[in-house]
Amino acid sequence: MIPTNGITKFSDSGGHFAGETETESERQVPERELSKFSQTLQTTTMPFSANETLTPDDLEQNVQTDRSQWVLKAPKPPGLWSELLNSIREIVASHGNKFQSLKNQPFFGTISVLEAMFPILLLCKNYTVTKFKKDLLAGLTLASLCIPQSIGYATLAKLDPQYGLYTSVVPPLIYAFMGTSRELGIGPVAVVSLLLSSMIQKLEDPEANPIAYTRLVFTVTFFTGIFQAAFGFLRLGFLVDFLSHAAIVGFMAGAAIVIGLQQLKGLLGLAHFSNKTDVISVLKVVWTSVHNPWNPYSFILGCSFLTFILITRFLGKRNKKLFWLPAIAPLMSVILSTLIVFLTRADKYGVKIVKHIKGGLNPISVHQLQFDSPHASEVAKIGLIVAVVALTEAIAVGRSFASIKGYHLDGNKEMLAMGFMNIAGSLTSCYAATGSFSRTAVNASAGCETVMSNIVMAITVLLSLEFFTRLLYYTPIAILASIILSALPGLIDFNQAYNIWKVDKLDFLACIGAFFGVLFASVEIGLLLAVVISFAKIILNAIQPGIETLGRFPGTDMFCDVNQYPMAMKTPGILTIRIKSALLCFANANFIKERILKRVNENEDVDTKGKVEERIQLVILDMSNLMNIDTSGIASLEELQNKLMLHGTEVKEHYGFLDYVNNLGLRFESQLKCLSLSLSIYIYIHILQLAMANPRWQVIEKLRLANSVNKAGGKIFLTVVEALDACVNARMG
Amino acid sequence: MIPTNGITKFSDSGGHFAGETETESERQVPERELSKFSQTLQTTTMPFSANETLTPDDLEQNVQTDRSQWVLKAPKPPGLWSELLNSIREIVASHGNKFQSLKNQPFFGTISVLEAMFPILLLCKNYTVTKFKKDLLAGLTLASLCIPQSIGYATLAKLDPQYGLYTSVVPPLIYAFMGTSRELGIGPVAVVSLLLSSMIQKLEDPEANPIAYTRLVFTVTFFTGIFQAAFGFLRLGFLVDFLSHAAIVGFMAGAAIVIGLQQLKGLLGLAHFSNKTDVISVLKVVWTSVHNPWNPYSFILGCSFLTFILITRFLGKRNKKLFWLPAIAPLMSVILSTLIVFLTRADKYGVKIVKHIKGGLNPISVHQLQFDSPHASEVAKIGLIVAVVALTEAIAVGRSFASIKGYHLDGNKEMLAMGFMNIAGSLTSCYAATGSFSRTAVNASAGCETVMSNIVMAITVLLSLEFFTRLLYYTPIAILASIILSALPGLIDFNQAYNIWKVDKLDFLACIGAFFGVLFASVEIGLLLAVVISFAKIILNAIQPGIETLGRFPGTDMFCDVNQYPMAMKTPGILTIRIKSALLCFANANFIKERILKRVNENEDVDTKGKVEERIQLVILDMSNLMNIDTSGIASLEELQNKLMLHGTEVKEHYGFLDYVNNLGLRFESQLKCLSLSLSIYIYIHILQLAMANPRWQVIEKLRLANSVNKAGGKIFLTVVEALDACVNARMG
Repeated sequence: MIPTNGITKFSDSGGHFAGETETESERQVPERELSKFSQTLQTTTMPFSANETLTPDDLEQNVQTDRSQWVLKAPKPPGLWSELLNSIREIVASHGNKFQSLKNQPFFGTISVLEAMFPILLLCKNYTVTKFKKDLLAGLTLASLCIPQSIGYATLAKLDPQYGLYTSVVPPLIYAFMGTSRELGIGPVAVVSLLLSSMIQKLEDPEANPIAYTRLVFTVTFFTGIFQAAFGFLRLGFLVDFLSHAAIVGFMAGAAIVIGLQQLKGLLGLAHFSNKTDVISVLKVVWTSVHNPWNPYSFILGCSFLTFILITRFLGKRNKKLFWLPAIAPLMSVILSTLIVFLTRADKYGVKIVKHIKGGLNPISVHQLQFDSPHASEVAKIGLIVAVVALTEAIAVGRSFASIKGYHLDGNKEMLAMGFMNIAGSLTSCYAATGSFSRTAVNASAGCETVMSNIVMAITVLLSLEFFTRLLYYTPIAILASIILSALPGLIDFNQAYNIWKVDKLDFLACIGAFFGVLFASVEIGLLLAVVISFAKIILNAIQPGIETLGRFPGTDMFCDVNQYPMAMKTPGILTIRIKSALLCFANANFIKERILKRVNENEDVDTKGKVEERIQLVILDMSNLMNIDTSGIASLEELQNKLMLHGTEVKEHYGFLDYVNNLGLRFESQLKCLSLSLSIYIYIHILQLAMANPRWQVIEKLRLANSVNKAGGKIFLTVVEALDACVNARMG
Repeated sequence: MIPTNGITKFSDSGGHFAGETETESERQVPERELSKFSQTLQTTTMPFSANETLTPDDLEQNVQTDRSQWVLKAPKPPGLWSELLNSIREIVASHGNKFQSLKNQPFFGTISVLEAMFPILLLCKNYTVTKFKKDLLAGLTLASLCIPQSIGYATLAKLDPQYGLYTSVVPPLIYAFMGTSRELGIGPVAVVSLLLSSMIQKLEDPEANPIAYTRLVFTVTFFTGIFQAAFGFLRLGFLVDFLSHAAIVGFMAGAAIVIGLQQLKGLLGLAHFSNKTDVISVLKVVWTSVHNPWNPYSFILGCSFLTFILITRFLGKRNKKLFWLPAIAPLMSVILSTLIVFLTRADKYGVKIVKHIKGGLNPISVHQLQFDSPHASEVAKIGLIVAVVALTEAIAVGRSFASIKGYHLDGNKEMLAMGFMNIAGSLTSCYAATGSFSRTAVNASAGCETVMSNIVMAITVLLSLEFFTRLLYYTPIAILASIILSALPGLIDFNQAYNIWKVDKLDFLACIGAFFGVLFASVEIGLLLAVVISFAKIILNAIQPGIETLGRFPGTDMFCDVNQYPMAMKTPGILTIRIKSALLCFANANFIKERILKRVNENEDVDTKGKVEERIQLVILDMSNLMNIDTSGIASLEELQNKLMLHGTEVKEHYGFLDYVNNLGLRFESQLKCLSLSLSIYIYIHILQLAMANPRWQVIEKLRLANSVNKAGGKIFLTVVEALDACVNARMG
């Protein structure tokens, strides 16, 4: 009996163990320990007699009764509503309370509110010239990568090239003021461009009706921004997690191949191309175009510069000091190839060139947004998909770089920043922008210090828009294709895919599902497939109807799976079972019940040939796994109990009394220690009991509500050992 | 060090503890126990000095290292494929190996195969005249209920009345030979009749084109049988469990109301009625029919006999000896009302009567099955839905009666029997039959002994078909409506619904979803809604991102949720956390990580005001719940570890050395015992460690595969206590 009144400070008082009030407890603890110790020896039936006289069996018995009462009289767990409210509160609060201590940030007054909204203000406080120099260098490097990339991605999105450049101006500026990442390079990205073009061209043909198409793109971008800002505002950052890592790996790899195939148009200089993105349609188009004219000069130009870019990247990886080489290689390729085309007038020989790029500042596009079109709901749906995919990429990239540099990225603030940058973008002729992996990598390796590098980049792009667009007239489209192609290997992560395969086969199924979905159906179907497989996996895991037999670790009170720990030993005559699922619900309860009965039966079958004392007397169900139970689960536990009772009765009929006495006699001679156990078997042979150990909060509450606790007849214990001891003691008593 | 080589018999050798080889172990156990005991005292910082010299710390340390090795070097768990194969094998085998011992059933030779296929043969062996007498009585009682009921359900299914009677002949006969239930009364049931008419009339209008409609009904019945037999053959009995208990309660109640509303047509004698089944359409029709002619005589006749049947049922419940009264009340009502109509010629006053019922044996309907119709796939889909619903009702009813009588129902054999009876039925002009709740209850209370009562009933119905159909010419349709209405209250189970509400609010949501779905949309939508809610509940439960703080039970090594067990005490400076979900996966890993960091932070915030020795030094993650983990989960565990480290460093910067020494001094004076702990805090203040305790088989295997075990740096332990002890020891060492 542990005197609960002797313990004055419980966990709610801060977990401090007050030594001075523990006088009673002190006296009890050794006794409890010793009694447990001797109990251990006793139940493992070892011929060990020292300390035997110390065993205060009655006391032990009382302690166990007390503890069962602890289980049965636990306070009421929080109900559904309070838990729901709590969850919502936690969701709302969790990202606000960042892990970094907030003490250094005075949160009072207008300035601090502004600082919370615009993290750049915090930055300005200790911004130095040294930092600016680094940011300037990084920003210029970034710009040299981003100008050709933006033009390329704009063509992938089936927009005029200047829109890509526009998208590299406004969104990075907005992000610089509101975002919390230091390295994230903002701008158009390949996957989002592909997603936009593949989904919007179903509504409007970009070639037949480019103006309407562009308007739809801006509207989608606006919705994307609205959704992202809403996610951030409502603190729904966790929604991004619903695209599992495995799904993203598969999706990105599939998207990379699809994007690569789209580049065949530019690389081969084809005039007509498929509007569909799946492999089969694209390859069909390419195959038929073998008979149609294709341009070998384009192909040679593109391939040779692709090789050049890949070589510079290889060099950059080998020698960290040459980090700038792969970063400026695209710009160098553009300049060189433009010069070549200009000098050789290759455009006369069919090499497609960019031609006129509209220069000047981003034009306002408010009037181009269309909310009353017949496609409104479709456009909003595309906006949602783009919002989720864009956020997933940005947050994945941002987080991985933040964790390298050792700071925290606030998911909700990031979402707000992305949302506002896309809303502002949609009003200034930009299409959906997000954090780009390749830009972020270049930015980080160029040594950026703060988000200022994005501002430098945006200003540089703005200047080029104002002054240099004319120079890009002769830039061959094949070069843009090769710049995009050169960025694709980064999207295909064989290592990750292999790791996923190694660790979790079902995760790999989601990965491969997304991959093939994107490849052979469409981008949305790939995403859908990935989400469905991921959630199907959760359901499968949650309702798996497995059970495991537990054994006792030698010399301890601990029970573990005998398959995982071969040193754990089963106690003869007792079957200890744990359910492998965390839920005992309609979908698995019946199956689990059958399996337990089958397990009992198997043991019986073995035992009828062998000794009677190994016959199952007691089934202990370790419920420590079980987080929740439903009405079907409770019903099947009750049924299990009834069937075990019934089974016990049948066994009694099966075994004649004489057989039993014979067996008992043999056993009596061989080992004295077992007498009591065997006797108890004799007395209780007709009852196969079911005891439950360590039910969790929700489970015991529901059993209590369903009145199952009374039906179980006091067979609920705190631990497996106590269940075991209590049943053995009850028989002896 | 427990010498594993000293233990010769492990669990796989039958779980027998071989006392004679345990010499080493014997010597160790007391030492281990004592050291653990003193360890307990030590860590709870009590000024207790006895036994202190006994503590063999090095040994303890070694034992713990050994045990950590047990965790790390567990054998490989079964892979996905082997587990999948195993599951399939278990599914296939589980229902074959019944719980009853199979010893009395010789399974060899043709006879035993026949006996396995046709359980009736087993029955014949010890069938007596006494039993037959009882079965005869029960069968006749059953027939008197079933003749009017069958005619009523046929009209509900929008078929001619004789089809109901046909359905009460062939299926019960087939079931009698193949089924394993002793009480189940087979025939048409209300819900299936409603389901058939509501879904098939969308394909073909039963009034405009009754012949085509009837053909479709037979085809659906054929598919129903094929699906049921396939479920039984492939041992997919568990599929029936996917309709949760709560969903069935809601669905049945909704269906009862819908069926009741359909009876208004017969009761009010309306000529036109809605083809839709939802409440709103039906009430609209009834409302408009107030202005159209409706027949008060029909209504009075129906209502008075409904009252009569309900009164007999009430009497039957009050007095168990009058069980036959409610059973024959429908037949009595039919006879009486037919007589009344015949004598008063009420049909001339607009009371609708059954008129001609085609008599004679079931005609063959093989040629009426239609597989080449344009609706083929739709028909198959309806067949599947009907198959599942029919099986669910039959097995639910059969199981509950079997468990009362104390025998086992073989789900797969039941499915086979149902399948064959419906296939045979579809070839002999029957529509889908199943086990009916009302018939089974009457059968059981009439004292049936075996399935022979079904045969008696079928023969009786057959005789009436042959000789008495002419007598039913003047039977008013209003009586059939009131017979159906009288059966409906049994389908609405307020008690169950209240229990579900009490035990599980989310389960109740599935229940109410099914109810309102059936009521306001359609039968299929109600079912769909119930299944979707049930599975959404599983997902919600599986990914709930909760964590719970654990405390130690005074005087034990056991750690429990401090909210569930207020007597559990937190150890100062150590945060023990358990995840509430069984899965750490993409959907919850990030959220759980944030919550743990927040919990650490909260503790920090409290502590900065208070004493330094309560500062969190160690976070122990009890992983005993966690059944599985995916790549996202592993990544977030690693991130958690990194962030905790980082956090520790920040804390060190925050706390000046002098502050620290001051605090240490105070502490030093107040309590000598804490010196070592405080010193260790000083040394390790910059590292906030993460230890993991008791990872399960799949989890440790995946951590090992992902190379996380090495990254964790040996911070994986068998139990929470060992994690705690090892970390304290490491600091002292």
